[in-house]
Amino acid sequence: MNEKSFQDTYADDLSQCYGCGRLNKSGLQLKSYWDGGESVAVFQPRPYHIGVPGFVYGGLLASIIDCHCTGTAAAASCRAEGRELGTEPVLRFVTASLRVDYLRPTPLGPLLEIRGRVTEMKGRKVVVQATVSAEGKVCVRGEVVAVRIPKEMVPPSIADSKR
Amino acid sequence: MNEKSFQDTYADDLSQCYGCGRLNKSGLQLKSYWDGGESVAVFQPRPYHIGVPGFVYGGLLASIIDCHCTGTAAAASCRAEGRELGTEPVLRFVTASLRVDYLRPTPLGPLLEIRGRVTEMKGRKVVVQATVSAEGKVCVRGEVVAVRIPKEMVPPSIADSKR
Repeated sequence: MNEKSFQDTYADDLSQCYGCGRLNKSGLQLKSYWDGGESVAVFQPRPYHIGVPGFVYGGLLASIIDCHCTGTAAAASCRAEGRELGTEPVLRFVTASLRVDYLRPTPLGPLLEIRGRVTEMKGRKVVVQATVSAEGKVCVRGEVVAVRIPKEMVPPSIADSKR
Repeated sequence: MNEKSFQDTYADDLSQCYGCGRLNKSGLQLKSYWDGGESVAVFQPRPYHIGVPGFVYGGLLASIIDCHCTGTAAAASCRAEGRELGTEPVLRFVTASLRVDYLRPTPLGPLLEIRGRVTEMKGRKVVVQATVSAEGKVCVRGEVVAVRIPKEMVPPSIADSKR
């Protein structure tokens, strides 16, 4: 994919996130893209992202769903406003609630595909549903209620006018 | 606390978990204990467990809720059977579903306290609710539906008779 990922358009001071910040060298650095009306990311769990032997840790799966869905919320909001991601004012979403259903054990080894789609947009809220698949089988379903980042969470380096 | 944590009683081959396995050197190594009828764990996020500057990453919060609640499910099941944690047959739970509500931003810096309580036990299923607090304020609420580990997830090193 040649285009920038959703997360690579976040302002520097909003790019520290452990799950998806490009500036967090210890983090997962998840990257999400549009694929038509859906968003998609791929992620390779590390060997230590284990739950029980042979299977991926559930908290890691929750984490990649979380970042993929908040990224999708930001990208979808930009699309709805007819503008490019990364333009101002900054659109960044945080998670109000997260639900994850583990449908079957996720094998540790294969690349994971995370796909998301927006199911609701209303005011500052965007709801995104996601699946995580391994070797073509959906292993996990998730839903994130994302809300536009509240003022008290925006770093002061990002001027009021750009929020 | 002098007693062993719930997770320190897990069999070696079920102690690899990224969130709470004592044998996962790259992991979070969460440790949970009884405090009367509730379970409690404390966790110090690392500086890189950041979401946006000043606040803890939501996926990390989901992860510590996940491991605290599955540990609580195992410990409560042992209690209900009137036996010590770590005795056979092995009682280990995995997550069927996880829900996390982020009530307020969780400050990055203070020690976090995770408290859990069992709200339902039925057959192989245990439901556990949890809170995560920083500086005495509840920042996050969670609920885990935990199920006894299915046979296909039990490592072959753990003999049938011990499952």
